[in-house]
Amino acid sequence: MSNTKNAYSRANTSFTLDLPEWAIEELNALPKHLVSVEERMAAVIEFSRRNFQNSTGGPFAAGIFERDSGRLVVIGVNRVMPFLCSSAHAEVMAISLAQKLLGVYDLGAPELPAHQLVVNWRPCAMCFGAVLWSGVRSLVIAGEGPELEEITGFDEGPVHPDWRAELSRRGIEVVEDVLRTEALEAYREFATSQSFVYNARLGVD
Amino acid sequence: MSNTKNAYSRANTSFTLDLPEWAIEELNALPKHLVSVEERMAAVIEFSRRNFQNSTGGPFAAGIFERDSGRLVVIGVNRVMPFLCSSAHAEVMAISLAQKLLGVYDLGAPELPAHQLVVNWRPCAMCFGAVLWSGVRSLVIAGEGPELEEITGFDEGPVHPDWRAELSRRGIEVVEDVLRTEALEAYREFATSQSFVYNARLGVD
Repeated sequence: MSNTKNAYSRANTSFTLDLPEWAIEELNALPKHLVSVEERMAAVIEFSRRNFQNSTGGPFAAGIFERDSGRLVVIGVNRVMPFLCSSAHAEVMAISLAQKLLGVYDLGAPELPAHQLVVNWRPCAMCFGAVLWSGVRSLVIAGEGPELEEITGFDEGPVHPDWRAELSRRGIEVVEDVLRTEALEAYREFATSQSFVYNARLGVD
Repeated sequence: MSNTKNAYSRANTSFTLDLPEWAIEELNALPKHLVSVEERMAAVIEFSRRNFQNSTGGPFAAGIFERDSGRLVVIGVNRVMPFLCSSAHAEVMAISLAQKLLGVYDLGAPELPAHQLVVNWRPCAMCFGAVLWSGVRSLVIAGEGPELEEITGFDEGPVHPDWRAELSRRGIEVVEDVLRTEALEAYREFATSQSFVYNARLGVD
């Protein structure tokens, strides 16, 4: 053991996560409102595609919208590899940025309009919980099932077996199979792009 | 709908999370190695207590250590309220800071010594997944069960019913009931402190 002292500082006890430059430009090019859930999902899928094409993260995006008006709050993308941060999934990025933009930790706060999270597949084991804590009242997904893992090689982990009921019990509606074919097509493009598939260790020593 | 343009910028599409000043001082005051799991948990519980006493977040802390040597990597604390960020749980803070300090997205990478996460209760629904993705090979908890929610009022969400088996299947050992009494005592202190208990919405419209 060393006799030197610990050297923690403000710089090494903070971390910053952000969206890539292209995503800022794309957000500014979008309409302020995306009226249908299909329009919202199409934007999310396009962000997921641009993310791996630009090598700025994995093929996952997540948008936060006002559920009824379709007002765009923000679309986040996966940033695990650029920031070497295993929690920087698209949902965590979108939820955290939306909460910062709106100045709330609860997107379901009584003074706010209802918010909706739109994701290009069912949230993983971690993001299932992040959805619960976010305060969104609506979750729109392109699909669920093994296809994502089979096509891409990404590990989605053990999601709660009663995930739909658990979301419903907390007043979060789930809208499924919105542009499912288009989402899978983007995953196939990812698979053929030979992009790196990161995963945590799978129990091998 | 407004005709004005969207105004996304680097500033409003990034977020920064950090440890409070007192935690940096406490980390620098700790030994570089904490040999037993009890020493590690005692430090974690003390950080959880200091966090609510200083009004810098909820009564939760999480430490990352080298499992075999006990080398301290970092101890994170809950930062949900100060940053209005529902994902800023202690485990996410600790894992993200450790990954940044070590320059890896996978704390279980083959070139690294095995890492251990020490938390002052069983991880919540979200953090269960964050543990899976972190790469830690060992999880030490002070306890699990309803006491935390009963004492503090915090919602831990629906954790996977087979959480122990799911962790084990991925090579993550679970060490339970380390300083359980001391952890519960800190939660009772929190409850009597009249500190604010944040929670996401619970399904009430």
